Amino acid sequence: MKKYTKIKDLSHLTETIKEAILLKMNPFEYSDLGKNKTLVMLFFNASLRTRLSTEKAAKNLGMEVMVVNVNEAWQLEFGDGTIMNGNTSEHIKEAAQVISQYADIIAVRAFPGLTDKQTDASEVVLNSFVKYATVPIVNMESATAHPLQALADAITISELTEKKRPKVVLSWAPHPKALPQAVANSFVEMMQHPEVDLTITHPKGYALNPEITKGVSINYNQEDALKGADFVYVKNWSSYNNYGKILSQDPNWMMTQAKLGEAKFMHCLPVRRNVVVEDAVLDSKNSVVIAQANNRTFAAQMVLKQILEGL
Amino acid sequence: MKKYTKIKDLSHLTETIKEAILLKMNPFEYSDLGKNKTLVMLFFNASLRTRLSTEKAAKNLGMEVMVVNVNEAWQLEFGDGTIMNGNTSEHIKEAAQVISQYADIIAVRAFPGLTDKQTDASEVVLNSFVKYATVPIVNMESATAHPLQALADAITISELTEKKRPKVVLSWAPHPKALPQAVANSFVEMMQHPEVDLTITHPKGYALNPEITKGVSINYNQEDALKGADFVYVKNWSSYNNYGKILSQDPNWMMTQAKLGEAKFMHCLPVRRNVVVEDAVLDSKNSVVIAQANNRTFAAQMVLKQILEGL
Amino acid sequence: MKKYTKIKDLSHLTETIKEAILLKMNPFEYSDLGKNKTLVMLFFNASLRTRLSTEKAAKNLGMEVMVVNVNEAWQLEFGDGTIMNGNTSEHIKEAAQVISQYADIIAVRAFPGLTDKQTDASEVVLNSFVKYATVPIVNMESATAHPLQALADAITISELTEKKRPKVVLSWAPHPKALPQAVANSFVEMMQHPEVDLTITHPKGYALNPEITKGVSINYNQEDALKGADFVYVKNWSSYNNYGKILSQDPNWMMTQAKLGEAKFMHCLPVRRNVVVEDAVLDSKNSVVIAQANNRTFAAQMVLKQILEGL
Repeated sequence: MKKYTKIKDLSHLTETIKEAILLKMNPFEYSDLGKNKTLVMLFFNASLRTRLSTEKAAKNLGMEVMVVNVNEAWQLEFGDGTIMNGNTSEHIKEAAQVISQYADIIAVRAFPGLTDKQTDASEVVLNSFVKYATVPIVNMESATAHPLQALADAITISELTEKKRPKVVLSWAPHPKALPQAVANSFVEMMQHPEVDLTITHPKGYALNPEITKGVSINYNQEDALKGADFVYVKNWSSYNNYGKILSQDPNWMMTQAKLGEAKFMHCLPVRRNVVVEDAVLDSKNSVVIAQANNRTFAAQMVLKQILEGL
Repeated sequence: MKKYTKIKDLSHLTETIKEAILLKMNPFEYSDLGKNKTLVMLFFNASLRTRLSTEKAAKNLGMEVMVVNVNEAWQLEFGDGTIMNGNTSEHIKEAAQVISQYADIIAVRAFPGLTDKQTDASEVVLNSFVKYATVPIVNMESATAHPLQALADAITISELTEKKRPKVVLSWAPHPKALPQAVANSFVEMMQHPEVDLTITHPKGYALNPEITKGVSINYNQEDALKGADFVYVKNWSSYNNYGKILSQDPNWMMTQAKLGEAKFMHCLPVRRNVVVEDAVLDSKNSVVIAQANNRTFAAQMVLKQILEGL
Repeated sequence: MKKYTKIKDLSHLTETIKEAILLKMNPFEYSDLGKNKTLVMLFFNASLRTRLSTEKAAKNLGMEVMVVNVNEAWQLEFGDGTIMNGNTSEHIKEAAQVISQYADIIAVRAFPGLTDKQTDASEVVLNSFVKYATVPIVNMESATAHPLQALADAITISELTEKKRPKVVLSWAPHPKALPQAVANSFVEMMQHPEVDLTITHPKGYALNPEITKGVSINYNQEDALKGADFVYVKNWSSYNNYGKILSQDPNWMMTQAKLGEAKFMHCLPVRRNVVVEDAVLDSKNSVVIAQANNRTFAAQMVLKQILEGL
């Protein structure tokens, strides 16, 4: 694998998931693979799970890891031809090439501004690293995608399902802040798979990017959508059409035990209790959010492993 | 050992101190013990000595270490049943369980607010990690205790004493800021030992938690208390009764060479020169503060070693 | 080597450069040398290249690395005899001795204030660490010097020159912020070597410390100075005589392809495009800034190697 910026960079999904589940039983099996290799993790935004799980994954493979909070250094310039007499001190062209001198793989987290759809869609930070770095890039959540999370989600569903074709529902939830669509986007892309029966439910106005949801069943009636669900992935996102806006905070969309029934509850975390989902769900055996978080390590480890094998 | 949140978690104190002194001569003796084990260090507050000594201790044992400044991520929620529509983004229930997926041991530093005695006494941050994490917890200074420091102090006294039962005096000192009682509390607990003759001296109004000082000689006359002292531990703390308040900044309580005489001077550091203690003391051979700081590594290493052995 | 705070600490420059170029082909050759040794990197100021290259260099040698952003902890006191009842919480005397307990080598970055020439010239932070630490100190850019950068620069020129005595020009460039003279100082010191023909060009008023430039050809006419140059090192610095002030932002001093001709373009980075140098230069094959950045690793590795060999 040459990079992992989007799910489609992964060529053998089914095999990767199977191997991840095996790796979990023996996480240090490939601890020589990363010997004398360095992962540089660049955070333009805060992180807890992604930071720890990706760092752990790299170390499980024997890699050295260097973590940089980019904002503690200085502002990078992404514009072409800019006269840099303002707030930006270094151009991404130099930064990406320079960091590539010290890294065998670079992982990047850079959230969207949520003010301009075209800017966010262009994935300027992530794609600039892809363009100018001379080593493989891993997406640790970008403006529009979170493929490491989606791979962990797929591993989790694969581990826990007893059905050939489980029904998976992605259900929008209210939230006090405007959040990106990245997790929802990548989850939908990952679940568009012959072995999953996917439904999305959200209030009107909360349609995701239609290129991503093409062909997916969308139902504005949450109750109806949840019927017969095996897995319910709950997530807030801000409006895509009315870009970056909060159109509803309707508490009726919060996930409850009554609505969930026997389905497994999924969420990428962090989650706001009693806003996105009630305590009863998170504290029940149907919640698999901790298993999901655990699988972040093995998702990252599979991605790093495949990249290391291709170096 | 299942955790080290308070001194009493340590079952064999005398043996632990002896072993720490031996370990110091050969700090890498157990460098295989922590192989493929990860320590996650969580800082809710600033740290220099604790950060470096604990990280070094873990690495001496062959562990991997991941350091997280929690405040750089987001605010955690500790309340039960809270509707999380405010400033907190993730509940400790999830955070502690999730971090446990990536860690074999979690170390936590979380200072008191010093505004509400009951809140601080409940040790909400530390105890929430103990409650919800699924791996052992190490206290890197909590609201009311600093047991790693106290263990290092005990090692230092043990190394340097020539007497069977040295006289140890804990002497309050002035300070411009309201400081926690944590270091004093743990030192007093650690010194309540048949082999130590402990006296506390402080101005009226600065009594520590009486449950901790029960049976310990307390003397409001510093000069009198210091007579015949072998070790003088100087430390400021804010009032426990008039909780978190500064009642005195009387410079007469500053430790001087004249007061100290031939006794060894101890302090946990950082220390404000010429406020807590005069230069002449710190710059003399009687100061053992650097030896104390060095012993932080071996205190932490003994604690981590005993926890690793019990995993 | 006992420390590397200035270029003169390096006794065998020519051999060091040769060995660095060999090391580059086999960077892990000495990966046992740093076993069980720890580098503590202390940042009083932001860093990208220096942080990553020095950390990588240490790990290439098998060292453990602990990175501390000092400002995240608390303010250090550097004054002698100060009554510390203000903003500073710990004296450098304790801090340096304490960190020495956890480190085999300490690396320090501390920029100048650029308000008082004498204060900056005294190198109070760096020199206090040299004075009070009990382990070797490495300068990761101090108030007046950046010797790791200069060593990387010398390696780069040595690698790329085809001449016995190349002409090297240090050319001042405009910049919107007042920058230190550190990089320019160390570069000039490094280039005062029989095998280099060095010229400095800058507007009037921008003379560097005359003790450093003694005997070096200085030319206020940039065009004239650049004639026949093999390497052109471009760098802004604030005025030394009118200390820390910006006297000119004249865009005519920006480096252009037309001015550069066939010479190699050098810069320590970060660089402001189209202010310090035009895009056409940085994007041409004559720019060697990425090679320079890469050599930072091997410069640091040679320094750490020589210090480790002397421990």
